[in-house]
Amino acid sequence: MDINHQMVLAARPEGDVKDTDFTLTTAEIPEPGEGQVVVKVDLISIDPAMRSWMNPGASYVPPVDLGAVMRAGGIGTVIASRHPGYAVGDELYGAFGVQEYALSDGTGLHKIDTSIAPKTTYLGALGITGLTAYFGLFDVARIQQGDTVVVSGAGGAVGSMVGQIAKITGCRAIGIAGGPEKCRTLVETIGFDAAIDYKNDDVRKALREYAPGGVDVYFDNVGGPILDAVLTRLARGARVVISGAMSQYNDQRPMGPANYMSLLVNRASMTGMVVFDYEDRYPEATRQLAQWLAEAKLTSAEHVVEGSLGDFPSLLRGMFTGANTGKLILQL
Amino acid sequence: MDINHQMVLAARPEGDVKDTDFTLTTAEIPEPGEGQVVVKVDLISIDPAMRSWMNPGASYVPPVDLGAVMRAGGIGTVIASRHPGYAVGDELYGAFGVQEYALSDGTGLHKIDTSIAPKTTYLGALGITGLTAYFGLFDVARIQQGDTVVVSGAGGAVGSMVGQIAKITGCRAIGIAGGPEKCRTLVETIGFDAAIDYKNDDVRKALREYAPGGVDVYFDNVGGPILDAVLTRLARGARVVISGAMSQYNDQRPMGPANYMSLLVNRASMTGMVVFDYEDRYPEATRQLAQWLAEAKLTSAEHVVEGSLGDFPSLLRGMFTGANTGKLILQL
Repeated sequence: MDINHQMVLAARPEGDVKDTDFTLTTAEIPEPGEGQVVVKVDLISIDPAMRSWMNPGASYVPPVDLGAVMRAGGIGTVIASRHPGYAVGDELYGAFGVQEYALSDGTGLHKIDTSIAPKTTYLGALGITGLTAYFGLFDVARIQQGDTVVVSGAGGAVGSMVGQIAKITGCRAIGIAGGPEKCRTLVETIGFDAAIDYKNDDVRKALREYAPGGVDVYFDNVGGPILDAVLTRLARGARVVISGAMSQYNDQRPMGPANYMSLLVNRASMTGMVVFDYEDRYPEATRQLAQWLAEAKLTSAEHVVEGSLGDFPSLLRGMFTGANTGKLILQL
Repeated sequence: MDINHQMVLAARPEGDVKDTDFTLTTAEIPEPGEGQVVVKVDLISIDPAMRSWMNPGASYVPPVDLGAVMRAGGIGTVIASRHPGYAVGDELYGAFGVQEYALSDGTGLHKIDTSIAPKTTYLGALGITGLTAYFGLFDVARIQQGDTVVVSGAGGAVGSMVGQIAKITGCRAIGIAGGPEKCRTLVETIGFDAAIDYKNDDVRKALREYAPGGVDVYFDNVGGPILDAVLTRLARGARVVISGAMSQYNDQRPMGPANYMSLLVNRASMTGMVVFDYEDRYPEATRQLAQWLAEAKLTSAEHVVEGSLGDFPSLLRGMFTGANTGKLILQL
């Protein structure tokens, strides 16, 4: 049991992620040096953005190096510490990677409080997921009561939070997702006002029906033809938040939004966001999100899969066919 | 001499404007009704956006109807008035259209003061041209001293104003234009710090050289491959102003900016603007622009062509091959 399994990036995929893009390797469990902690990883966050980290070329974070442990956020428990801020048994959020044990000098670690919410929720509503929705809506899109808010990838982790926070704020929330079952979940379980099944519906036509006054805020997780469709239905002064471009990560030649001149016609803006920029305000946001959870205004949709590191490639691949609803988490 | 020649839209062009897209027709010179004025048109403003008004489908203004007088801004002199606000001899800016005499109920008319600047300048620095640059830079892009400002269509009317206002504000100004001669004019006459010849230079490479710290503000008049090139060189927090998309107006299938995810990587925004939204602040801006003109900090680059209405189609077509430097004006 003193072996650390690690999922290492073996190749830069073209198109869909393949099992052979990763190699499962073993290493010794590290010992903490002065100022370091060793964490046993309990939960691994699986995110669409991981696919973009596998591509060459700098994005908002550098690409994962070939031969390096695949980058991932996660929740773990301290098993050895020579860091004054952390003791054995502390439960932490951090960028632990796709491995069983991680060494850390404390950078980017956040203690979690499981008396407020279960561990998994610190990857969902109280984690990067919830924070992305929170800052994207309030800071970038500046949502206000009465706005019509549309989100793509609405069945995903961030999307389902966007819909709920929009509703809490008095907005109309319309989700775009793939498949009738997922769309039913959006409306009946998550609380969206309407859902559009992009696999079977005409998105422009559906928006004309569900958002007859136009789209005030579009929170985009997917890019591609869905972004282009929503651009045709913007309201005057609309704010488009670019949070991801899931439909494009597998593509060598990404597609630009041909209808971007709708920004001029509608005096609208399109703004890119990266949640890490708001790190100094995580406590404020987390407090608010935890309060909504406590008041049962918000639920943290989590899709927890028990398994081992070997399940990682297929779980990541499955995100791009929409296999998950809510935050996808690998529980080791 | 009581005949009003009019240039009427005869067909919606596909691709480049043809002479046959217009018909030169005649009508009687109108008589003013109660509350109306009749204006003899002296100057007609020729703008790239005119091409977009000829396309079907609503943009920020409705398309010009087939059979209607082509829309145009212009400067004219009141020759008959039954409007209490205007007297015979008053010189006015208005949307008079491509015709020799226009009837108006006063909507959108602005008196001009030729003791401050010549008539033509009210289509240039003190007209929509200067106002577009002013509000685009100060209100949309929020330029600040030290910013690196890039503008496309830099040899055009708005572009040359953008460069000068950026310089006045203490920014570094880089212009993108077509051809070595135009680029030389940008630097030597208009005062840009650097100019990039998109017909002969690699725009990305040139931006790496001239804007090594990245582009803080990009004022886009052209769209297409140039927009895509500039997106690859944005600085953190960059602001892209979408003022036009000249390279796209002739196209049936416009091209979207494939590199738009640079907005996310750089936490940047892309915002559409229409100068008409700032009409209540025109006086403030015009005062400032006039002061800069008086102080010789600003020059109004004007390209005045003496001619008749029949010259209009070829002048409009010539804009898209970059025939003009500065504001193109047809003087009747």
